[in-house]
Amino acid sequence: MGIDTEALRLHKENRGKIEMRSKVEINSPAELSLAYSPGVAAPCRAIHQEPSLVYDYTNKGNTVAVVTDGTAVLGLGDIGPEAALPVMEGKAILFKRFAGLDAVPLALNTTKVEEIVETVVRLAPNFAGINLEDIAAPRCFAIEEALRARLSIPVFHDDQHGTAVVCLAALLNALRVVDKELSRVKIVINGAGAAGQAIARLLYRAGARRLLVCDRRGIIYPGKAGMNPYQEDLAQMINPRGEQGDLATALRDADVFVGVSAANLVSGAMVKTMAPQPVIFAMANPDPEIRPEEAKESGAAVVGTGRSDYPNQINNLLGFPGIFRGLLAVRATKVTEAMMLAAAQAIAGLISPEELTTEYIIPNPFDRRVVPAVAWAVGTEALKAGVATIALEAKQLRVSLEEQFGPW
Amino acid sequence: MGIDTEALRLHKENRGKIEMRSKVEINSPAELSLAYSPGVAAPCRAIHQEPSLVYDYTNKGNTVAVVTDGTAVLGLGDIGPEAALPVMEGKAILFKRFAGLDAVPLALNTTKVEEIVETVVRLAPNFAGINLEDIAAPRCFAIEEALRARLSIPVFHDDQHGTAVVCLAALLNALRVVDKELSRVKIVINGAGAAGQAIARLLYRAGARRLLVCDRRGIIYPGKAGMNPYQEDLAQMINPRGEQGDLATALRDADVFVGVSAANLVSGAMVKTMAPQPVIFAMANPDPEIRPEEAKESGAAVVGTGRSDYPNQINNLLGFPGIFRGLLAVRATKVTEAMMLAAAQAIAGLISPEELTTEYIIPNPFDRRVVPAVAWAVGTEALKAGVATIALEAKQLRVSLEEQFGPW
Repeated sequence: MGIDTEALRLHKENRGKIEMRSKVEINSPAELSLAYSPGVAAPCRAIHQEPSLVYDYTNKGNTVAVVTDGTAVLGLGDIGPEAALPVMEGKAILFKRFAGLDAVPLALNTTKVEEIVETVVRLAPNFAGINLEDIAAPRCFAIEEALRARLSIPVFHDDQHGTAVVCLAALLNALRVVDKELSRVKIVINGAGAAGQAIARLLYRAGARRLLVCDRRGIIYPGKAGMNPYQEDLAQMINPRGEQGDLATALRDADVFVGVSAANLVSGAMVKTMAPQPVIFAMANPDPEIRPEEAKESGAAVVGTGRSDYPNQINNLLGFPGIFRGLLAVRATKVTEAMMLAAAQAIAGLISPEELTTEYIIPNPFDRRVVPAVAWAVGTEALKAGVATIALEAKQLRVSLEEQFGPW
Repeated sequence: MGIDTEALRLHKENRGKIEMRSKVEINSPAELSLAYSPGVAAPCRAIHQEPSLVYDYTNKGNTVAVVTDGTAVLGLGDIGPEAALPVMEGKAILFKRFAGLDAVPLALNTTKVEEIVETVVRLAPNFAGINLEDIAAPRCFAIEEALRARLSIPVFHDDQHGTAVVCLAALLNALRVVDKELSRVKIVINGAGAAGQAIARLLYRAGARRLLVCDRRGIIYPGKAGMNPYQEDLAQMINPRGEQGDLATALRDADVFVGVSAANLVSGAMVKTMAPQPVIFAMANPDPEIRPEEAKESGAAVVGTGRSDYPNQINNLLGFPGIFRGLLAVRATKVTEAMMLAAAQAIAGLISPEELTTEYIIPNPFDRRVVPAVAWAVGTEALKAGVATIALEAKQLRVSLEEQFGPW
């Protein structure tokens, strides 16, 4: 049975993947009167008097909205909100399975920036964090920007920042393997959409200074025709000298290739023009920019993909559960680049120098240390930065994460 | 320990009452690749091609939004969305416990009619039904009206229609006890808000023709100053001759009193002016319009309240779980007054003539026959009216309800 048939069967048999559950029993009038009227008036009054008690008396503090408009779903593109729901339900159960968080899929029947922003702002009372998902660029940037300005809970577009965090984690370890410095290597990112731009920005923030981003028409540079303002801004930051050329040109002497684009755009011949011991992250799904076998044959020292059937799977699942767990543990008002850096370092740091090989630069998503390590990194960074809204010592945070996830 | 203390403890210990759960296991890369990428693309593509498959491959078909703006919460009034959350979570777990439905609390950070409407319209892809809750009148009427016009899933304001259905059920049986006809009795409803107006409309629809509704300033009549358009419309329908007077005047010779107002507004003396064998539904919570003991002493034949510590509790819990279960079972596009009548008759019909007494006119909410009986009544009415969007024989509906709830 093919994976499609099997996936359809799984979804149909279960009629989707999520359900709502009660955490309390209601089997008698007495239980009913505590969980509902008249007893429920007591927590209502308490929250009305002291709004922060909503975190004590409701599930808000453990709840994340998974918001999409269905315009950039997997590799399928703009398939609309209903067709996006299986992915959003999938995301929700990953939040639960890996981080113990309760996520609510909210696929919206609008693609207008202002309408999406308004809708999420109105929904914010129910959530402690907003995970934006599968919203096409460049609208995703404007939506995230506006929501961050208007909300005092973290807003995180996973296709951008989750991808960037995990990519950076993999790169930190890949560069250790080949003994190169992030600040000195030449990095080419192919794909100038949500993921490509976010990766470029986070790598820059982490210290990379020789960065080129290519779209379908080659290297982006200041003033290039057809770019949106976010791409222009990025080009000015990373490519102020205005280097131009196609992907093949960009790759000459490059130390690192990061692909968030499409299948088969990189050839073995192109890899051979790269600097010695090149690192290739060919993350297009399901078919990478270059087959790992071919990249290796052409001299790649380290190869990563988005696939689980090759070594070094660069998988968002290593990021978002722990990031949100950390944010919600300290009731953070926002997520910062410093937190993302800390998360990437935490993921990379789980692999000891002795364990590190060309085939093992990044942990497996089922490695149970990942979520608490990331949550700890993000949570302590939030406490340090003063964006946490709960009085909590780092030590207490550690204890509570160890209670939930075990030591790491 | 008082009920307030106990309710606060329950809510705090559990950190609210709801959680999201996965219906599928994710313990291996293989399971991950079916529930999420890449396998999840198959149901996405299928729904994109045939939108109705969203009911097969996601949980949408079992999911209800519980929407509030926090403006009319219990007896607490306008306490805002966060403080309303304990009630919405409570409602959600009642949906689950009694009907097996997955409900999502959505407390909105706006009280503007158009903004609430737009927000719910944009959220509709995720839900098979909308339960409006604790929204103040008269905005609740405009919101419900607009949503019904714009959505092809049922929209049901429980404070209006749920209350009306259960009140009608109780009244049908109370009138059997005292051997009077709905079409001939004089009924006085005190309270002209959401519940009072909905009760009046449903009783009218059920055949009642001698109906008076009082607000704080007495009987409402066409042209009365200070009324909203919905009250004016109601007054024209039920009181075309323009009867006027205070509550005491209205109650003279009345056969039925229905209170959805406030504590202690009806005296024993007022009950004594009513027709022989009067029926008193004093539903104000937690303190009724007249204490049941006093109503009885003053001659009331049947007394009902909103409280669980007296006989004949007129409780919304008898209505909404079965109503939504029935609507969702047939994927109804809307809820109609005919369905509400059918629901009321189904509730009333659960008590056999032999069982019927002045102290037992309405089933207990824990009577497990209630939900399937109501769902069956609503579902078959939807099938009959042609507002069901699933090809289903009534017989199949009965079988599936019996499978879920047992025979009734």
